Amino acid sequence: MPGTLQSIKYENGKLEILNQLLLPSKSEYVAITGVEEGWQAIHSMKVRGAPAIAMVGCLSLAVELHNEEQHDKKVLRQEIEGKLNYLVSARPTAVNMKIAAEELIALANQLSKDETVSSEQMKEKFLGQIEAMLAKDLEDNMAIGKFGAKAIIGTVKDTKNVRIVTHCNTGSLATAGYGTALGVIRSLHAEKRLEHVYCTETRPYNQGARLTAYELVHERIPATLICDSMVAALMRARTITAVVVGADRVVANGDTANKIGTYQIAVIARHHCVPFYVAATLTSIDFNIPSGEHIVIEERPECEMTCIGEQRIAASGISVWNPAFDVTPAELITGIITEKGIFTPSEIINLKPEGNGPEFCE
Amino acid sequence: MPGTLQSIKYENGKLEILNQLLLPSKSEYVAITGVEEGWQAIHSMKVRGAPAIAMVGCLSLAVELHNEEQHDKKVLRQEIEGKLNYLVSARPTAVNMKIAAEELIALANQLSKDETVSSEQMKEKFLGQIEAMLAKDLEDNMAIGKFGAKAIIGTVKDTKNVRIVTHCNTGSLATAGYGTALGVIRSLHAEKRLEHVYCTETRPYNQGARLTAYELVHERIPATLICDSMVAALMRARTITAVVVGADRVVANGDTANKIGTYQIAVIARHHCVPFYVAATLTSIDFNIPSGEHIVIEERPECEMTCIGEQRIAASGISVWNPAFDVTPAELITGIITEKGIFTPSEIINLKPEGNGPEFCE
Repeated sequence: MPGTLQSIKYENGKLEILNQLLLPSKSEYVAITGVEEGWQAIHSMKVRGAPAIAMVGCLSLAVELHNEEQHDKKVLRQEIEGKLNYLVSARPTAVNMKIAAEELIALANQLSKDETVSSEQMKEKFLGQIEAMLAKDLEDNMAIGKFGAKAIIGTVKDTKNVRIVTHCNTGSLATAGYGTALGVIRSLHAEKRLEHVYCTETRPYNQGARLTAYELVHERIPATLICDSMVAALMRARTITAVVVGADRVVANGDTANKIGTYQIAVIARHHCVPFYVAATLTSIDFNIPSGEHIVIEERPECEMTCIGEQRIAASGISVWNPAFDVTPAELITGIITEKGIFTPSEIINLKPEGNGPEFCE
Repeated sequence: MPGTLQSIKYENGKLEILNQLLLPSKSEYVAITGVEEGWQAIHSMKVRGAPAIAMVGCLSLAVELHNEEQHDKKVLRQEIEGKLNYLVSARPTAVNMKIAAEELIALANQLSKDETVSSEQMKEKFLGQIEAMLAKDLEDNMAIGKFGAKAIIGTVKDTKNVRIVTHCNTGSLATAGYGTALGVIRSLHAEKRLEHVYCTETRPYNQGARLTAYELVHERIPATLICDSMVAALMRARTITAVVVGADRVVANGDTANKIGTYQIAVIARHHCVPFYVAATLTSIDFNIPSGEHIVIEERPECEMTCIGEQRIAASGISVWNPAFDVTPAELITGIITEKGIFTPSEIINLKPEGNGPEFCE
C-alpha cells in the first residue's frame, strides 16, 4: 500500500503507532515495546477505533513474545492468557479486542495440548496467527475498497469521475489500515476516478475534521471539509454521486448503527436521489440482533458538546442530548459493501455463517 | 415584557447594550454614550443581527442628540445626515441600518423644511421617531409570537403541550427584543403550552450553542441543545410538533434564505411529517427577487470552521466550504409567520405594498 497512511507499523517484533491524541496538530509515532505500553496506549486513546484497538493490543503481545526468552509451553500458555485478558481491560467496551483475545487463547490452549508441537513451534505459530489477523483486516478493507469503487463507478456514465460524501472516520486511523468507507474512497482515488470527496466535521467529537481530513490531506486526495449542517445544501449545489459511511454494527435485517448524524445524511441522500452505501467487514454484522429497534443507543457525556478542550463553547446551564450513534433503517440503504461483495440490506442474512451462536430472543 | 432578556436598554437618552462578544461566559452591559461608541459596538460585533444593529445605531444617535445643546435646524439636519451615514459604514452589509438611515434622513429633511416646526420640535419629533422604531420592532415580534403560538397550538389535540426545534439565534439578541422564531417559542412558553424546545448548535459560528442556549437558560424555558447532525435522530426518538426558524430574506415566491443548515432541517422535517415554519417581519420580505435561485450565497472565511478562538480544530491543509446561508424552497415551508398573520409561501406575494420599487429583472 504505497502512500497509504499507516497508523500501525509492525515488523519483526517492532511496533510503532501514530499517537492520535496529538492529531491533527502533530504527527508523531510512539514505540510500543510490550503489553504494558500497549494497554496504556489503548486506555489513553493514543489509538481508537475498535479494529485498530484489537490490532495494537494483540501486536503488543507479539512484540513481547518475540523479544523474550523461550518459555516452556505451559508457562507460555499461562502468559498468553493472562496478558490478553489484561489487554481486554484497557477499553472493556471495544468488542473486537475481546473476540480476538478469545480466539487467540483458544489457539494457545490447542497448541499447548498438541504433543507434536514444540515450545518454539508453539510460539512461532502463535505469532504467525497475530500477524495473519493484521494482514486479514487489511485485505478485507482493500477488498471492500475494490468492490465499493466498482459499484460506484458503475452508476456513472462513461468515464465521468465521481463525487463522494462521507461521515466520521473510517480510515487507516480506525482500522488495521486502508479503511472501510475511506477504503472505498482510497480505491476510487487510486483508480483515478475520484473527482472530489466531501467529509463532514462529525460533531461533537470532530472525527471528520480532525482525523478524516488529516488522512485525506496526507494522501493528497482532493477533499473539502463541510459542517454536518451543509450536506443538503451541498447536494443542491453540486451533483454528488454517492454517500459512503462505515458501520458500528449492521444487524440481521440490514438496519445499521453508526456515528450520530449518519441517519440524517441517509434521509437527505434519499431526498436528493443520491445512493447511500454502508461499508463494513463481516465482523461488524451482528446476526443475533433482528432489527435496529433492538439496538440500545449509548449517550455520551455533555462535555463533548459543550467544550473544545478546556474552552467552553455553549451557554452555562443548558441541557444537552448527546447520543453517540443513530440507526439508519435498511430501506434508506442502497447497498452494504463487504469483503465478499455488495449486498442489499435484505441479502445480508444470507451471509450468516453456520452455527453462529444462539438465535436472538427477548 | 417582564422576564424577557433585554439586549438593548434605552430610556431618556441612556443606552446600554449586552456585550455579545463576552457571551456565553460573561453577561455584561456596556453604556453607549454616543455615535462614536455606537459605531464601535457595531463594528466590533458587541451587537449583531441586522435588526439589532439598526436599533443600536439609531439609538446611539438619539443618545447624542438628547444630551447635547440645542442646535438650529440646519445644523441639526447636517449633523443627523452625517452621523447616520457614518453609522451605516460600521457594517455595510447590514441592510436594516441603511434603510433606517434613509428613512430618518428623509424625516430630518422634511422637518428641516417645514417652517411651522421649531428646532426644539424638530429634535423632539426626530427622537420620537427613533423610539417608535424600537417599539415597532418589539410589537411586530410580539405579534409574530402570538400568531405563531396560536397556529402551532392549533395543530395538536386538546391541551397537549408542544415540542419545538429551532436553529440559529432569532431572539432578543438579534432583534430589538423578544425575537422572531424565538418569539414564537417565548409565546408558547408564556401560554404554558411549551413542553420543550431543542436548539441546534448552528455550526460553524455556534449561534445556537452560545446565544440561543443563553437566552433559553436566562428565561428558564425548558430546553436542550443538540448538534446539527442530531435533528433526524431526535425526530425519530421523540414526537416533535413543529420546526420554527427565522429568515435572512424571504423572496416573492416564498423561497427563504436563512442560516446554513435550515434547508437540511426542512428536508428532515418533511421526511418525518413535521410542520416547518419561517418567522419573519415584513421588512425581511424582498418582493423584488422572484425566487430563491436568484439569491447569491455568501461564502464565509475558512477560519470560522477550522478554529474555535485561537484553537485549531481541523487538520491543516484541508479545504473548506463555508456558505453562510442556504435557501429553503417554498414547497418545504408549511407557513410564514409575520406580524400580519400566517401565510402559505404562495400567499406572500399578496402582502406586497403598493409602489414597492422597481420589478426585478435580470
